[in-house]
Amino acid sequence: MSYGTVIRVLGNLLTVEAGLMIPSLLVSLYYNQDDSTAFFISILITGIIGFIMSKSFNYKNGIKAKEGLAIVVFGWILISFFGSLPFVFSGSIPSWIDAFFETVSGFTTTGATIVDNVEVLPKGILFWRSFTHWVGGMGILVFTIAIIPTLGVGGFQIFKVESPGPAPDRIVPKVRDTAKVLYITYVIITITELILLLFGGMSLFDSALHTFGTVGTGGFGIKNASIGAYDSTYIHLIIGIFMILSGVNFSLYYFLYKGKWREVARNGELRLYLGIIIVSVVLIALNINKTIYHNWGFSLRDSFFQVGSIITTTGYSTVDFDKWPTFSKAILFLLMFIGSSAGSTAGGIKVIRILVLLKLVKREFAKIFHPRAMIPIKIGDKIVPNETVAGISSFFALYMIIFILGTIVISLEGIDFESSASAVAATLGNIGPGLGFVGPSKTYSQFSYPGKLLLSLFMLLGRLELFTIIVLFSPNTWRKEMLSNKGRFKLRKLWRR
Amino acid sequence: MSYGTVIRVLGNLLTVEAGLMIPSLLVSLYYNQDDSTAFFISILITGIIGFIMSKSFNYKNGIKAKEGLAIVVFGWILISFFGSLPFVFSGSIPSWIDAFFETVSGFTTTGATIVDNVEVLPKGILFWRSFTHWVGGMGILVFTIAIIPTLGVGGFQIFKVESPGPAPDRIVPKVRDTAKVLYITYVIITITELILLLFGGMSLFDSALHTFGTVGTGGFGIKNASIGAYDSTYIHLIIGIFMILSGVNFSLYYFLYKGKWREVARNGELRLYLGIIIVSVVLIALNINKTIYHNWGFSLRDSFFQVGSIITTTGYSTVDFDKWPTFSKAILFLLMFIGSSAGSTAGGIKVIRILVLLKLVKREFAKIFHPRAMIPIKIGDKIVPNETVAGISSFFALYMIIFILGTIVISLEGIDFESSASAVAATLGNIGPGLGFVGPSKTYSQFSYPGKLLLSLFMLLGRLELFTIIVLFSPNTWRKEMLSNKGRFKLRKLWRR
Repeated sequence: MSYGTVIRVLGNLLTVEAGLMIPSLLVSLYYNQDDSTAFFISILITGIIGFIMSKSFNYKNGIKAKEGLAIVVFGWILISFFGSLPFVFSGSIPSWIDAFFETVSGFTTTGATIVDNVEVLPKGILFWRSFTHWVGGMGILVFTIAIIPTLGVGGFQIFKVESPGPAPDRIVPKVRDTAKVLYITYVIITITELILLLFGGMSLFDSALHTFGTVGTGGFGIKNASIGAYDSTYIHLIIGIFMILSGVNFSLYYFLYKGKWREVARNGELRLYLGIIIVSVVLIALNINKTIYHNWGFSLRDSFFQVGSIITTTGYSTVDFDKWPTFSKAILFLLMFIGSSAGSTAGGIKVIRILVLLKLVKREFAKIFHPRAMIPIKIGDKIVPNETVAGISSFFALYMIIFILGTIVISLEGIDFESSASAVAATLGNIGPGLGFVGPSKTYSQFSYPGKLLLSLFMLLGRLELFTIIVLFSPNTWRKEMLSNKGRFKLRKLWRR
Repeated sequence: MSYGTVIRVLGNLLTVEAGLMIPSLLVSLYYNQDDSTAFFISILITGIIGFIMSKSFNYKNGIKAKEGLAIVVFGWILISFFGSLPFVFSGSIPSWIDAFFETVSGFTTTGATIVDNVEVLPKGILFWRSFTHWVGGMGILVFTIAIIPTLGVGGFQIFKVESPGPAPDRIVPKVRDTAKVLYITYVIITITELILLLFGGMSLFDSALHTFGTVGTGGFGIKNASIGAYDSTYIHLIIGIFMILSGVNFSLYYFLYKGKWREVARNGELRLYLGIIIVSVVLIALNINKTIYHNWGFSLRDSFFQVGSIITTTGYSTVDFDKWPTFSKAILFLLMFIGSSAGSTAGGIKVIRILVLLKLVKREFAKIFHPRAMIPIKIGDKIVPNETVAGISSFFALYMIIFILGTIVISLEGIDFESSASAVAATLGNIGPGLGFVGPSKTYSQFSYPGKLLLSLFMLLGRLELFTIIVLFSPNTWRKEMLSNKGRFKLRKLWRR
């Protein structure tokens, strides 16, 4: 492996991150707050170290699989570390580990927070915190995909590993064009939501930060009561709708733009995604209306918002759903695992994988009476190769293994079963709040430092689709066997899965 | 489908069941208790109906897949219904639904009970209750495998569907011989445990009933404190060891008998099974010793018993493990899903399936850097066909789907999340007690009647390996397409899975 290439690209990433901190500095200066010095120092440190790293090493042309993996994984860790500097320097989050947790949570668009009273944070810090969602949303490396190619190193593999979830169809032939299309879509959705929130009477600052948290499916609140602090059905609806829009495969927006309505309407993942949302909203509304609300309008409104928030792995809340009956909580818990579409900013297992698993089960039934029949699994008109099905099955198994073992280990914090399980599900699925001890009215501040580091790892594992991180830290990966060119191909598969 | 064949075989099953009630009648007469009349009437009704059914219809030679499925599924339901007659007639369990639940729980070797005070039940009823475990243990249809062939209808398919779990190797060439070998092994283990318990000072009655519950991996207690009522480390150890022995693939005992020690020692499923037990026992002992016991001996003893009881899906308890710390409870909860070996009397997903899933995940890692390599999944020296791997993946997915949806529905009983989830896990895995509301010191009596029926369905689903029941009740199965001979082959696959 060419360490030079890796370090050089990582250096470029840090330089970009330093640049990304500038808006927060400007916000801080505009509101004339104490945290501007912290940003100034953070930008300086990050920028200088980034610059040195990017200039100190030679690199070979092209990035191989192992280098791509190393860049993605170490990139997330490094960026989270340097991204936490403003929190520490400003004194907003004095502990390094807490600040790291918060920044990982931001960049992975999880939205799990250790800040107990978010309303006392200075404006620049609040801006940076939410902005990490927006940056993380499309993947900080997708963001830099336009820069890396100018360095002469291919960023294709990185994009493929980075892009959340399986099978975002290659929309347009070239990588940079693909990135551009996704990026433009992202910006359009962002601006639309921002305007609609302003229209609802929210301040520009609040609108911007909530928009970052929505389109990045992050969910850091800037009020202790999250979106519940805004007593406006309009605002609840706008944010609810935009969370759901952000959980759709972004390629579909491009298809819409190109007038391919039929392809979009027929999309199996989209249909299942919307179907799950509708069924969940109705079931929960029925349940909470009967037990708590006794008002159909409010039941539907609050059910819609919480369902949208959890399935898109955003994590905003308008009510403390931990106080809902077990039936509603169990549905929300299930949604934590499903997540949203591949090719969106959301986390979780992803609807497309669920769809393939459902078809796999269905085929097994068919096979009982037609044992010799070769029944392919199809998504739309395309046959899903057996290898991909095996990949999805093993992803599901690994997800469950990590979830279960994680729950067992986290329970050592001395918390109850529901809290342990939901803390792991909520970090692994990049959601944020869970149930009980980590319910929407609580934070992650009570966990021990080892616990916080472990939960940070789950956020990264979830965001990077499990395999990438584990393979990079497994001893086998670092054996002498340098990658042959064959290694290049697998990344495509990782991406398709 | 030949309904005549199905009804005829079911009639034979009922006749056998009537015969199986005779020992309970004798016990009741011996102890001179009130329940003897109930047994007398039950035997008469079951025997007469069975006799009429078995004589009223003609049958075709040979049993096809669909008929085999129908016999297995309706057989369990019918036998559970008639098996509940003594409970109702004796007044021990006045409600029909409660009695049905209890009998399903018995025959499926679950051991979930609705009897709040088991110590007041008459002796005959207690005997019958535990005896259903013993009968259910090897499968009531395996039990009758020696009878069906004499009718001229092939019982092979039934045995294959019936035999719990995937891949009990065909030990000896002929079906009847296989059944005999398994049956003899079963009897030898039963007698050995019985003698060892008597040796520990337990009465013959108690020893017999506990032996039935152990080797059938059932777990109906005859004391309100289950095995905890016996303050004897010897008895805890004997029952603990025999539970674990009953969770081993019975073919391995035949290999041992034939002197094939090496094959047994190399068996991947056995190794993983024992490995999981050792790791779990140690981890839980460490946890409870630190938090509760502060005594290594007792910690290990109680950890060993509870781990053995849960992983073998027996469900006996010596302590109220619901009061243990979350860490220990979470490990036990995980064991509920794993279950024991295929070809044993235990339920759950089965260790062999877990083994294949682990290898599937491992292969996926290997594939990242060797994308074009064809890496087969092996168990021992044998390559597991891709179809079987797909079957196991879909089994796992279906198990999780039923577990999750079941938890959501059962939570409508108004119980908490942990209780709902563990009630479903404990019935689907044929364990018995769960956590919280269904913890070892509680019973299932508080559930509503629809809830009890649903939980009965989960017990049957778990016992019959999910697919069999669902496929039989799906509308497609009853469409005109009669089974061609091809249908015969699938059952073999169902069995191998």
